[in-house]
Amino acid sequence: MSRYVPSDALYVDLYQLTMAQAYSRSGRTAEATFSLFVRTLPPDRGYLLFAGLEDVLRYLQSLRFTPEDLDYLRSTGQFGDDLIEYLAGFRFTGSVRAMAEGTPFFVNEPVIEVTAPVIEGQIVETFLINQVNMASLFATKAARIVWAAAGGGVTDFAARRTHGTDAGNKFARASYIGGFVGTSNVAADALYGIPTIGTMAHSFITSFETELEAFRAYTNAFPDTTTLLVDTYDTAGGVEAAITVAQELEARGSRLVGVRLDSGDLNQLSRTARKMLDAAGLPYVQIVASGGLDEFSIGALVTARAPISAYGVGTLAGVSADAPWSDTVYKQVRYGGCPVAKFSPGKATYPGPKQVWRCFDKSDGRIVHDHLTTADAEPPERIALPLLGEVMRDGTLVGELPSLEQVRERARGELGRLPISALALSGATPVAVSVSDELK
Amino acid sequence: MSRYVPSDALYVDLYQLTMAQAYSRSGRTAEATFSLFVRTLPPDRGYLLFAGLEDVLRYLQSLRFTPEDLDYLRSTGQFGDDLIEYLAGFRFTGSVRAMAEGTPFFVNEPVIEVTAPVIEGQIVETFLINQVNMASLFATKAARIVWAAAGGGVTDFAARRTHGTDAGNKFARASYIGGFVGTSNVAADALYGIPTIGTMAHSFITSFETELEAFRAYTNAFPDTTTLLVDTYDTAGGVEAAITVAQELEARGSRLVGVRLDSGDLNQLSRTARKMLDAAGLPYVQIVASGGLDEFSIGALVTARAPISAYGVGTLAGVSADAPWSDTVYKQVRYGGCPVAKFSPGKATYPGPKQVWRCFDKSDGRIVHDHLTTADAEPPERIALPLLGEVMRDGTLVGELPSLEQVRERARGELGRLPISALALSGATPVAVSVSDELK
Repeated sequence: MSRYVPSDALYVDLYQLTMAQAYSRSGRTAEATFSLFVRTLPPDRGYLLFAGLEDVLRYLQSLRFTPEDLDYLRSTGQFGDDLIEYLAGFRFTGSVRAMAEGTPFFVNEPVIEVTAPVIEGQIVETFLINQVNMASLFATKAARIVWAAAGGGVTDFAARRTHGTDAGNKFARASYIGGFVGTSNVAADALYGIPTIGTMAHSFITSFETELEAFRAYTNAFPDTTTLLVDTYDTAGGVEAAITVAQELEARGSRLVGVRLDSGDLNQLSRTARKMLDAAGLPYVQIVASGGLDEFSIGALVTARAPISAYGVGTLAGVSADAPWSDTVYKQVRYGGCPVAKFSPGKATYPGPKQVWRCFDKSDGRIVHDHLTTADAEPPERIALPLLGEVMRDGTLVGELPSLEQVRERARGELGRLPISALALSGATPVAVSVSDELK
Repeated sequence: MSRYVPSDALYVDLYQLTMAQAYSRSGRTAEATFSLFVRTLPPDRGYLLFAGLEDVLRYLQSLRFTPEDLDYLRSTGQFGDDLIEYLAGFRFTGSVRAMAEGTPFFVNEPVIEVTAPVIEGQIVETFLINQVNMASLFATKAARIVWAAAGGGVTDFAARRTHGTDAGNKFARASYIGGFVGTSNVAADALYGIPTIGTMAHSFITSFETELEAFRAYTNAFPDTTTLLVDTYDTAGGVEAAITVAQELEARGSRLVGVRLDSGDLNQLSRTARKMLDAAGLPYVQIVASGGLDEFSIGALVTARAPISAYGVGTLAGVSADAPWSDTVYKQVRYGGCPVAKFSPGKATYPGPKQVWRCFDKSDGRIVHDHLTTADAEPPERIALPLLGEVMRDGTLVGELPSLEQVRERARGELGRLPISALALSGATPVAVSVSDELK
């Protein structure tokens, strides 16, 4: 039942390969520049948080058509031997300028610009859009949830809900960049070194005759790291059983970490649970809430001052449910040294490679506005930083990639410089982006 | 820059492994049955189309923790040697009953039931929910779009828009099951043998001095299989250029396949293009439409009788944009021979393994209603078929898996038996599911 698994090189739209053949046969193989950006921000979003660059650079660096990929392509009968031979020797030899991961960005701002022989630049399009679009939507959704939680820790419980396993692993990474404290997804830790966090499932409880018996079995295995799920039968009864177990643990020198509420009126139930735990002399036992949460419902719990110290989010976070897509595009802006553009209605693009300048307020360091210029323009004013820097030259990385912790720290800092109006959960106003006269 | 890539075995929520340790240490290792089903249908949906089983069965059959996975788990310090040793020898030894892929299903109906030692049944939960939830949402979205297209061919252009590459490949498969005619995703053909279809990108056009030159370059490489993208600068001008190239092709004994409209008022533009093509003696050149299409906008074009013969759908289809999630769950319904259930508010489950009976109208063969019983119940009436059948016994497949074409054909047939009220794009009424007295 085993089968050939194509490499990421085959994750391309067919037209990338047919165009390659047409380019090659018509001798149009000059260098081109492609810009990756969004035309609009998704609903309610005052910014997007850039993520996915590391996976893109790893892909570009290791991109090869395997012998099996080439056999498959040959077998389709759609391509000439000239193209197959070209793909057999394919390496990405281009250069990449990009914003740093963890940077907020706005409409028409390139987050990545690829300069390469046109066929190379074209073949990587599908994968680049796919990964940056996904990771940036995820990081943004996470950052909004973290903002709404106002200091409460948020954990990724989305592995079962994302669209596939690639999305599950990358949601864990992007949400960690956006400020989550950990993930339930073990593979994401193995891949990216993200702290894993877990509680228990209802099925664990129902495997035992009583809830109390299930709680004891679990805390026997993990006396110091357990959060008990208390809503399987009746939440008040579940908290009672958790108190019993917490007191038994105390007698043995251990402490119950928390209880998890996963259904019902989380505001009311958290108050009841808090009172019961406090009355039992267990003020240190935390209350964790989960079950269909997103930035809006967490925001409401925070506003109501529900005594919840941590949140697990899955379904609505892991698909960025209120904004599952963006119009991330990857457009050719230069060919053979000449700026180019398209003029389709509603889809016009600015020609040529660009620079994005971020302008800050002198007094408080907040982001005031962004300014879009040609790549070689002079700085627009004194307190402005260029956001695009070279990260790959001739197919080779320029310098070391930042660690995931560094990217997460950058996101925290940059989000902190956004005006509140851009951070708002609804009716947000993005930072204004001016466009230089030359570009217009 | 290479790194360890964990196997699918690590695509688990941490609690699956901690529970395994707790189960094992407390001697709770009896056989359990888990049911995979949805509690509600997503908005506007009168049914869900079951997909993802083949990938689930391949996973169960090949599931192993690799030596690197085990090294990683050991390195976390979270697990005892007893668990690591257990995982080193892990095989899925359970049995699986399932509906056939391509079967429409409704609330509370198990599409998969897994019976296995409880730890095995638990460890596979995250992956099973992830894959079936994704594939069924995708197949359903595709079936709705195909229904709206009313005979027009629909192609998957979503590879750049799905959440990651796993989703991109599986959207191609699920949408083909749902009735799409092909995909732009080359990897999906390599994996699943789905017909690939492609046109060209705007960047190809902008690489040349003129549109006409670009069209000629492409048709020189592919004289008999080209669909020209005509909206890069101005659609009417693009169609003019396409007509010139089509006539040049005719002179060489070839035929232009079609023109693609990707922006603007597709109804008006398709009428203009059709008139121009017909006036030029090119009635065989088809009009393909793309650009932000879904079942609703395609339905409107069909109602308006726009002369479009095929559609390419990406963004809104590939994330099931109006319904990017469902509440697919995997619940323990039996442990050690005894039916079990949970009673959380709004999340109560029926205990025990089940059978789903599909009841048909005697006269026209349409689906009248479904009936949910215990697994060992007698058939409820004469014209009722049991939907759950054994597909895996003791970790081994029972019989051959149907081919993708067979699954697609099954979906076509079963969707054709649904009442119109369940197929409606908005305000759909699902087929009623009655529940046997015994289950209640």
